[in-house]
Amino acid sequence: MQILYELEKVDVTGVRLFAPASIANISCGFDVLGLCLENIGDIMEIRRSNTAGIQITSIKGQDLPLEAEKNVAGVAGLALLAEYNPQLGFEIYIEKNIKPGSGIGSSAASAAGAVAGINYLLGSPFSTKELIPFAMEGERLACGSAHADNVAPALLGGFTLVRDTNPLDICALPTPLELVATVIHPKIEVKTADARAVLKTRVSLEKAISQWANVGALVSSLYEEDYELLSKSLVDGIVEPARSILIPYFNELKDACKKAGALGSGISGSGPSVFALSRGMTTANHVAQAMQAVLEKTEIPFDIHVSPVKQSGVSFLEDIT
Amino acid sequence: MQILYELEKVDVTGVRLFAPASIANISCGFDVLGLCLENIGDIMEIRRSNTAGIQITSIKGQDLPLEAEKNVAGVAGLALLAEYNPQLGFEIYIEKNIKPGSGIGSSAASAAGAVAGINYLLGSPFSTKELIPFAMEGERLACGSAHADNVAPALLGGFTLVRDTNPLDICALPTPLELVATVIHPKIEVKTADARAVLKTRVSLEKAISQWANVGALVSSLYEEDYELLSKSLVDGIVEPARSILIPYFNELKDACKKAGALGSGISGSGPSVFALSRGMTTANHVAQAMQAVLEKTEIPFDIHVSPVKQSGVSFLEDIT
Repeated sequence: MQILYELEKVDVTGVRLFAPASIANISCGFDVLGLCLENIGDIMEIRRSNTAGIQITSIKGQDLPLEAEKNVAGVAGLALLAEYNPQLGFEIYIEKNIKPGSGIGSSAASAAGAVAGINYLLGSPFSTKELIPFAMEGERLACGSAHADNVAPALLGGFTLVRDTNPLDICALPTPLELVATVIHPKIEVKTADARAVLKTRVSLEKAISQWANVGALVSSLYEEDYELLSKSLVDGIVEPARSILIPYFNELKDACKKAGALGSGISGSGPSVFALSRGMTTANHVAQAMQAVLEKTEIPFDIHVSPVKQSGVSFLEDIT
Repeated sequence: MQILYELEKVDVTGVRLFAPASIANISCGFDVLGLCLENIGDIMEIRRSNTAGIQITSIKGQDLPLEAEKNVAGVAGLALLAEYNPQLGFEIYIEKNIKPGSGIGSSAASAAGAVAGINYLLGSPFSTKELIPFAMEGERLACGSAHADNVAPALLGGFTLVRDTNPLDICALPTPLELVATVIHPKIEVKTADARAVLKTRVSLEKAISQWANVGALVSSLYEEDYELLSKSLVDGIVEPARSILIPYFNELKDACKKAGALGSGISGSGPSVFALSRGMTTANHVAQAMQAVLEKTEIPFDIHVSPVKQSGVSFLEDIT
């Protein structure tokens, strides 16, 4: 596939792309650290249209609104067009493989895919970082606040750190190549309102100091490819103890991950998915078996995924001519 | 100077060394981030003795206790000997250039110098990291708690992050070479008890999140040598607003630093010294002039220092034969 970065791809009708799932709220990095997943994501096709604005032509796999203003991909795409050229039009088809509400960035994937695809077809007038605010508008529709902790890794890939949201300031962090995520999605509903309600507005200074020490160490471990330090710093003494009560068998899952050799584990986003990070695919698969064994003893249905951390964000699969 | 790492330096009577000052509590990194200073520090001479234990022979420049059990260098040295061989004895002479109570790690320098010097004369049975707990015993004497945020940079050099104190876990971070500190020491007393009393035991989750986002970004900026990111992340929304009320003209000093081009500024340790970090010596000197101009208008006497970040810790100046 030829990539034209400066010229609009006038000879190309559309693009087929992979919009990756992501894990936000990585342990000590609540609200700031996220990572991109390689093996889990939506397939999207974005095509030029003669009708101004965004049309969601169809969505496969999930029952989601087709009206652009009510769809995260639509809203994100419209935000980009409002900035670039509101006269232009695009059609979006989505094959939704990430379940909404699972806690692995379903809305972020659709929003990121929409803006990355449209930008691609326009000849990349925006840098990938510049796309983040547009995708955040999709998040605002999905969860009421324009947060960046899933759209940043979905667009940039690897690990990302949201230093500030006003003004937006995102750091792309290096990602050790052997890092593999295991994610189990217990099919229960954790309402975002509940996930927020269990958080206290004030926390102990002592625990906060420990948390920022661990965030600093975690960032260092990514640069150093120091898996031992990464493991030690994948802890969360503030949010996880409060939120984990909403996730059945959370402690059992965490114990199972540890015994199976994971570097660490925690709540993915605001749950209910639980993630673990491991060094290498073999361990990540053992961790998957161990997590699976916990939920198989219960009545709770679940999905399970094993995926390396994706080093880049949205992938363009093929041009549509 | 020949350095023997594995054999005791039996032919050497003693060593003359430079024990550096340090800045702890670097902005967002309260209680965890410290850095080592190149141009400010104590000179120490450590000699073998036939009398078991530590004798402080004399201290030049400050009126400090000579009794080993009441002197930070003595206590730190004794902690090392207790672990290695309590039958051995050393004499310590200190030329104290760092003023106790100034907030730039005066006690840490003496403690670090003592253990580094003794370890050197023993043929380095301990790694530099292993020396930290011994030096921390000196800090316990000086301020009641065995904290590591000054002894870690004084021993390891550069930037250090104390991830945990129990068990102790220290990360040595890279230090951009152009980074220069300016430190002004207003000669007033800030009692440690007061500096602690103004801190609230609980802090807002929102501010804590912002703090750990900045710590993560600051660590990334050190690896990337990204001075702009370093500048943006040198903020402290939690401790500085509370503690700065104890430091007269703090806001004026901070404004002066910013106008003179500093990357950022804050309270050094628990004060009263105020530090700024700048890119390059020229800017750091401008910052010094600007800080000086603020305090010259007042009745407060002060010292001022400009110093690059020291890339290594305690320096051995010469063997004494």
